[in-house]
Amino acid sequence: MRFEMICTGEEVLSGQIIDTNAAWVAQVLMDQGIEMQRRLTVGDRIDDLVAAFESCAGRADVVLVNGGLGPTADDLSAEAMARLLGVPLALNSEWLETMTALFASRGRTMSDKNRKQAMLPQGSVMVDNPIGTACGFRAFYKGTWYFFTPGVPSELKRMVHEQLLPWLASTFPIDAPTGLHRLLTIGQGESNLAQLLEPIPLPAGVTLGFRASLPYIEIKLLQRHKVDADDWQRLLIEYRKVLGDALVGENLKSVPEAVHQLLLQKGQTLATAESCTGGMVASQLVDLAGSSAYLTAGLVTYSNEAKQSLLGVSTATLDSFGAVSLETVVEMAQGARERMGTDMAVSISGIAGPEGGTEEKPVGTVCFALATQDGCYAQTLFLGARSRNAIRLLAATVALDMVRRALLGLPLCAEYGYLTRTDSRRV
Amino acid sequence: MRFEMICTGEEVLSGQIIDTNAAWVAQVLMDQGIEMQRRLTVGDRIDDLVAAFESCAGRADVVLVNGGLGPTADDLSAEAMARLLGVPLALNSEWLETMTALFASRGRTMSDKNRKQAMLPQGSVMVDNPIGTACGFRAFYKGTWYFFTPGVPSELKRMVHEQLLPWLASTFPIDAPTGLHRLLTIGQGESNLAQLLEPIPLPAGVTLGFRASLPYIEIKLLQRHKVDADDWQRLLIEYRKVLGDALVGENLKSVPEAVHQLLLQKGQTLATAESCTGGMVASQLVDLAGSSAYLTAGLVTYSNEAKQSLLGVSTATLDSFGAVSLETVVEMAQGARERMGTDMAVSISGIAGPEGGTEEKPVGTVCFALATQDGCYAQTLFLGARSRNAIRLLAATVALDMVRRALLGLPLCAEYGYLTRTDSRRV
Repeated sequence: MRFEMICTGEEVLSGQIIDTNAAWVAQVLMDQGIEMQRRLTVGDRIDDLVAAFESCAGRADVVLVNGGLGPTADDLSAEAMARLLGVPLALNSEWLETMTALFASRGRTMSDKNRKQAMLPQGSVMVDNPIGTACGFRAFYKGTWYFFTPGVPSELKRMVHEQLLPWLASTFPIDAPTGLHRLLTIGQGESNLAQLLEPIPLPAGVTLGFRASLPYIEIKLLQRHKVDADDWQRLLIEYRKVLGDALVGENLKSVPEAVHQLLLQKGQTLATAESCTGGMVASQLVDLAGSSAYLTAGLVTYSNEAKQSLLGVSTATLDSFGAVSLETVVEMAQGARERMGTDMAVSISGIAGPEGGTEEKPVGTVCFALATQDGCYAQTLFLGARSRNAIRLLAATVALDMVRRALLGLPLCAEYGYLTRTDSRRV
Repeated sequence: MRFEMICTGEEVLSGQIIDTNAAWVAQVLMDQGIEMQRRLTVGDRIDDLVAAFESCAGRADVVLVNGGLGPTADDLSAEAMARLLGVPLALNSEWLETMTALFASRGRTMSDKNRKQAMLPQGSVMVDNPIGTACGFRAFYKGTWYFFTPGVPSELKRMVHEQLLPWLASTFPIDAPTGLHRLLTIGQGESNLAQLLEPIPLPAGVTLGFRASLPYIEIKLLQRHKVDADDWQRLLIEYRKVLGDALVGENLKSVPEAVHQLLLQKGQTLATAESCTGGMVASQLVDLAGSSAYLTAGLVTYSNEAKQSLLGVSTATLDSFGAVSLETVVEMAQGARERMGTDMAVSISGIAGPEGGTEEKPVGTVCFALATQDGCYAQTLFLGARSRNAIRLLAATVALDMVRRALLGLPLCAEYGYLTRTDSRRV
């Protein structure tokens, strides 16, 4: 099946809105084993719309059209399709009733403007929108199905899952995939991962994909059809072996999410002591509802004074070894754990740049420590010559991965690929 | 001039990468008075590429092609263009030398693979890339110029600014805009802003645009040609009047950036005490290089215990008024300022949801306080029934806007549109 997409709207074309709908649709279809072939983005001019629709006719089996179903004058998708088909717009009384009821249920009267949203090209098939006033529709022209969807992301998503996918499955019987397994990695580039995994043969019916979402690269294993269970398990075991510590989660969105779940499960408490990450670690945890159960306190000790007064780091340590040193992060983590009375404390101090690097400690040098009842483990990693924000993001992820590894009883001294360890210590 | 864009690459088409290059290019051209007319996204198949290039021929004056200039087998843009032109690929010895020198300067030997990047369609014009191995080029076919650019965002951006824009200006003399003024707002929706500004007539040559970038809406005033200076000043004065406190900056990227600059200029120090924002305020400041000069400490006191031990909030206050109250945020801000010895301290405590809301304090209720040498001002705002992350982002912005307003000597009791104040106090 040949699947294409047409995105409409001046805001999308002019870059005022970044087109996340397009990426979302492509990913959802990919997970169903359907590959997007081509995407065309046009504005709100009727001639451009008609030309865009015409340009896919006969080539594509299905074209998903997104946007242009609203009540205002610049919403022209239905009119453009009617023009292409050479038919008038006709009132769909079923949708008019649905809209009237929707407005009534919200205690409002429908304006005349919305009536336009029930005008569909004659002969087209209405597609339900359970959460908005823009109904979808589908129409057939020169061997191609056009499937019209609303621009509002939540309405699009619901329509794709509840209407498009079942209709596709019944109209174009494809070998629907039976499962998707995601492996979350840090510290390896995409090309490097591809090279590492290349020698491992994929069982019949399994395809491999990558998705970069900084600081992670996600490896996606798609079962396009039923795969032998033993082959599948063998594959996962081999992947885990090759990926080693760079694998930080499976079927998980992020390391903070993993830590969040583990801390809640184990009933342990955490304190953070952050310098160059400046509160990012704490903020990533607080972003997850329920984190108040374990995150006792987060300390952003960006200045030496705060490291001393809040965490009790000694002047001697700061003077002799500097703020970015194993000695300092150890005192930060121990100080945070003792003063906050938590089970664990993690600390970070590093050089995020663009200034402040030296030959001995270049930009990208970050020290980490984790204090638990078993003692304190500290390490220095070189995260690479990256942007300030990329270094901070990587550092926050490594720090939380130390917490994750401790909670799982794994060695803290992990090997992450291009993140090079330059020093470590256990006290 | 008719300008179109072709984006190439499976990752972009399949949604693994969200196409931020496309939005960036459209915005930069819009700022030059050039409107994007159409955008086509295709994968890495040679036939699709040739068909895509062909489909613009004769219609567009200029087509910017992005991506497909790398060294690997799936980088096919030059080959596809050569096929369309009916010419062979020819070695560009100037670029081969440039690349060889680039590798030598990094102490590396160029691999044979990179030689491919110097193979351009015969007769095309090389376009310099000062920071990468993918040179651009331009070629003419059936009345249309094709301008080829690298997919790496930093390389694309540099090439557009240094090569494309000057070439466009000399080849297609357009009425280049003479200025762009950006007004950063919070607390107003886009349609609401449009309605507020509609009655104010725009002087000849000025166009108005909006860009949503949460939690901000940016208003863009573009001078398409020379505008009468008095008319322009009158316009800005009227806009400022109508926008009121919702206007949080002009020609600035963000409120943290404004606060960063003001604190550095005035030599003042700041401490933060965050509950529901969980370190986001501190992290937004630490993201800006140089923030160590003023950010003495950030305290993430998500638990009541931490509010007491780190900030000295009294048990009586927490028991009587709760963690989300004016009384608590006042003690948080005062405690942070006194204990950290800073000029200013800002505190935040709120209900970010999805759980924890009550009838009296629904999700979206956030209390703020700012302590300075002049005393402490506290307020409660209802930020709306939004997602956890949206509420936290808005809260961080409001908190830093209080700091900004104090530093500028503006009243702290600002009116932000849909962010409703439910209570306030000065102590």
